[in-house]
Amino acid sequence: MVEAYGCVNVELEILVEGAGLYDLTQRVSGIVSSSGVDEGLVTIFVRHTSASLIIQENADPSVLDDLQAWMDRSVPQDAQLYAHRAEGPDDMPAHIRAAITSTSITIPVMDGRLALGTWQGIFLWEHRRGPKERKFIVSVH
Amino acid sequence: MVEAYGCVNVELEILVEGAGLYDLTQRVSGIVSSSGVDEGLVTIFVRHTSASLIIQENADPSVLDDLQAWMDRSVPQDAQLYAHRAEGPDDMPAHIRAAITSTSITIPVMDGRLALGTWQGIFLWEHRRGPKERKFIVSVH
Amino acid sequence: MVEAYGCVNVELEILVEGAGLYDLTQRVSGIVSSSGVDEGLVTIFVRHTSASLIIQENADPSVLDDLQAWMDRSVPQDAQLYAHRAEGPDDMPAHIRAAITSTSITIPVMDGRLALGTWQGIFLWEHRRGPKERKFIVSVH
Repeated sequence: MVEAYGCVNVELEILVEGAGLYDLTQRVSGIVSSSGVDEGLVTIFVRHTSASLIIQENADPSVLDDLQAWMDRSVPQDAQLYAHRAEGPDDMPAHIRAAITSTSITIPVMDGRLALGTWQGIFLWEHRRGPKERKFIVSVH
Repeated sequence: MVEAYGCVNVELEILVEGAGLYDLTQRVSGIVSSSGVDEGLVTIFVRHTSASLIIQENADPSVLDDLQAWMDRSVPQDAQLYAHRAEGPDDMPAHIRAAITSTSITIPVMDGRLALGTWQGIFLWEHRRGPKERKFIVSVH
Repeated sequence: MVEAYGCVNVELEILVEGAGLYDLTQRVSGIVSSSGVDEGLVTIFVRHTSASLIIQENADPSVLDDLQAWMDRSVPQDAQLYAHRAEGPDDMPAHIRAAITSTSITIPVMDGRLALGTWQGIFLWEHRRGPKERKFIVSVH
């Protein structure tokens, strides 16, 4: 077995209440701090196909509302459009919404900190309606 | 020359018959196994601008059909919409479809295995109509 | 402090004149060359939420025009659609356009060079109308 040098994978969970954007920045930042890595990268990976990741503005909450509204218009929850309906009318749109955003995102670590821009936050985008426990992995490398 | 520690890049090919989703999970998993890496990451990169990568549900094939149908509606193959027509009416929509999905995806490797969620598969999404040989690179790091 | 082996993060800037695609390939390629890395990966990360990254065709400029035109149709600059208007009518569409493309992209480095396909270029996609100074980080690892 070969250990990839300096790669630390940590699995985390988040409880979501339904569709919307959930800020993961503090939790990812905490993993980076405790890793002791000074110069490197952090990768976030979500272990689901109906939730996804984006980096977006962390200041005005109306940005997040407008993102959700655009998605509701562009990938409608209209059962007539889809053959895959067994898991509910919000399931197939959730898969499409995940496909056009991201399952993994990589961010540089510089001087021991996430090198995000001033207005950037890391968000899990839940695309299903109901409460769920979602798993994601933070890898510092 | 500096060798990045533990990075193994392997170029692979897949023959596609036309537009649709092709499951790469077994092939990526095989590269991870033979690398001997226990804790790390794997990055998949597609060397084309009219095919792309997504992670999606690997269970019900109707999910893949619905993904394709949404793409056909949202990025139509209507030559009147595009100035770039020299390579056929399916070429420019293919570029757009690739742009709103992913050219590279990174997945953690834990305990020597791809840390995918239960329902996650890795797919190459071919956006052109005809048969082609597509190249992708699997990097274990 | 632990230095992640072989990770070199370099922050760069680009002056953009307004919405459109700006080719970063030569600058990324230069960083890879000067890093001395022979086998590895390069990650590009954009430090903004209204500009993004894609890999697209580097040959026919009409491809880039058609990409922009599709985005203008699919994420319209229509203030009535959005609650977040304080920063101008092009700001909220810019956030959505960034969300459905990419904030980070990872490309293999093989034989000391970017392992891009023949027709692939790396582009920053500016989604705001006016001139701006945009920051991105190139990480060779």
